[in-house]
Amino acid sequence: MSKYLDQNVLITGGAGFVGSNLAHFLVNQGAKVTIVDNFHPEYGGNEHNLTEIKNKIELIRFNIVDRQKTKDLIISSKPNWVFHIAAQCSHVDSMIDPFFDVEYNSIGTLAVLEGCKALSKETGRSPIIVYAGTRAMIGQPLERPAKETTLPNPTDVYGVNKLAAEWYGAVYARVHQIPFVSLRLTNSFGPRHQMKNGKYGILNWFISLALQNKPITVYGKGEQLRDYLYITDAVEAFAKAGEFGLRLVNKEVSDPTVQLSGPSIPFATFNIASGRAMPFGDAVKAVTGRTNTPLQEIPWPADRKAIETGDFVADCSAAAKHLNWTPKVSYEDGLDQTIAFYREHLKHYI
Amino acid sequence: MSKYLDQNVLITGGAGFVGSNLAHFLVNQGAKVTIVDNFHPEYGGNEHNLTEIKNKIELIRFNIVDRQKTKDLIISSKPNWVFHIAAQCSHVDSMIDPFFDVEYNSIGTLAVLEGCKALSKETGRSPIIVYAGTRAMIGQPLERPAKETTLPNPTDVYGVNKLAAEWYGAVYARVHQIPFVSLRLTNSFGPRHQMKNGKYGILNWFISLALQNKPITVYGKGEQLRDYLYITDAVEAFAKAGEFGLRLVNKEVSDPTVQLSGPSIPFATFNIASGRAMPFGDAVKAVTGRTNTPLQEIPWPADRKAIETGDFVADCSAAAKHLNWTPKVSYEDGLDQTIAFYREHLKHYI
Repeated sequence: MSKYLDQNVLITGGAGFVGSNLAHFLVNQGAKVTIVDNFHPEYGGNEHNLTEIKNKIELIRFNIVDRQKTKDLIISSKPNWVFHIAAQCSHVDSMIDPFFDVEYNSIGTLAVLEGCKALSKETGRSPIIVYAGTRAMIGQPLERPAKETTLPNPTDVYGVNKLAAEWYGAVYARVHQIPFVSLRLTNSFGPRHQMKNGKYGILNWFISLALQNKPITVYGKGEQLRDYLYITDAVEAFAKAGEFGLRLVNKEVSDPTVQLSGPSIPFATFNIASGRAMPFGDAVKAVTGRTNTPLQEIPWPADRKAIETGDFVADCSAAAKHLNWTPKVSYEDGLDQTIAFYREHLKHYI
Repeated sequence: MSKYLDQNVLITGGAGFVGSNLAHFLVNQGAKVTIVDNFHPEYGGNEHNLTEIKNKIELIRFNIVDRQKTKDLIISSKPNWVFHIAAQCSHVDSMIDPFFDVEYNSIGTLAVLEGCKALSKETGRSPIIVYAGTRAMIGQPLERPAKETTLPNPTDVYGVNKLAAEWYGAVYARVHQIPFVSLRLTNSFGPRHQMKNGKYGILNWFISLALQNKPITVYGKGEQLRDYLYITDAVEAFAKAGEFGLRLVNKEVSDPTVQLSGPSIPFATFNIASGRAMPFGDAVKAVTGRTNTPLQEIPWPADRKAIETGDFVADCSAAAKHLNWTPKVSYEDGLDQTIAFYREHLKHYI
């Protein structure tokens, strides 16, 4: 029986790509899902993402940066789990307006943590927080494959603030016993991603161009190694991380390679990636080949080159060991499913 | 001849403890010093700190969090160096109001970086930034002695945000070629520190109590090891870090143990500490012994115990190698000088 059956679950950013796919999964597990999303027009929040489950969830509209509203929502909805996924997630935008990134990623996360702290003070029990981290926290990896204990080396303000948010989680776990599990996700792709521009996920953007019969342009030769994770695998990692949070609460875990702040603290972080290092150019050719789309190579623009992280490969053995999680969907199968989804639904996403 | 002779230098938080002592040093070196300080009543900014140099500096009053004013000041004053010292620096306050800490430490630093970026775009040359970091960025050290490459483990929001600010520096060094040298300072003490409460420096606070004939209370047995650095040694480290910035600009340095983000990037970070591990209780007894003050031991309050970092000892060999910096003043001599200063000036600091 699912641990989530009849449990209260709050998903921040739950109308977006990762959040809405997770919402579908948890509704199917019998969870009582509340979603908060501000539907910022530039970001991924999209009512169409929730069509099939709209009568089974509670949908609330505001920006979690409003800390009073966030606290009130957490106290009134009394979640057993908070999946904190709402974020500003454009690398380039974080360099154009770093203050906006601080607001969404740093202050937004503190608002969630303060809300959980308030609920914990009132009821004596804190929700388990599962946080959507990113490989951008590791940035240009100082060892390959990157482990959870690898010294982070973020290359943009987005990476710094996402990392700061993970460490707020470690601090609140230490000081206020709020369980916090962070997933450092690699590039994920799949259905329910916005398709308006390439700032938040380049593969989905290329699929969008291909399905609109527009040419695809890549910077340089596309030799940099990347790791692409299909969304259903990412969602499964979130669900398993939430269950792992129960083991942290029960003090059944002691592993300093993921409990970076100390084994007695209910905090852990995990790399989540497909484990398949793929040249970016090959990933793109799989899109253009399936859709008969012309492919152009152009030189790197300076603003992108400056924050390019180089090859990225992550060691996910800790997630296999502690979460019993391994990716199941191949890049090619994921791509087929994604293209099929958007052949049907593209108009809702562009 | 001093590298600072006739050079423009901006010091943020320059009316406070570290900033004002640095201002005296740089004025004596012939620098043209501009100070910006908001004189927040809770913090260390104090006109008395600048009495002897007030006719030799430019003093400007605003909060650097005002990013437009900060940008305008940097563009108009065209500093060769910016010593960025302004900060919220109470561990406990950062846990009571984490949003305020983000404002001062994260957004304040981004305002300085954006100002330097704007000046650099206008003139083709960026100031060298020297940043006042803290051992709180390392928090509870995951190895002892802590090196610059030790995985950080901050125990409070203050430590997280000070670390995020250092990494913003690394990002701006990478992307915008703004030279950035961070000093991770241990507990420093000495003249020109505020003496109103113990939130920003416990030794100075104990000296304040002793000189007012009030009893001194320590939590527990005071067995935790600490490292106390006298202010003139800290000031010398700042001055040498500024000179080291010139070597970064000239690409004369290649050492991944301090250039954490990559050897071609004009960023480096250094531990700065006395190198003498001392039980906190012994440090306090040196104060009570010199002033005939009663000493009481009481149990740890929960909010302090929760963010206590345990023993702290830092490896400062990188600063010795690259900055040619080693501490010169013993704890005992520093304490004698500090007590002598406050016997004369205490009324201006309480």
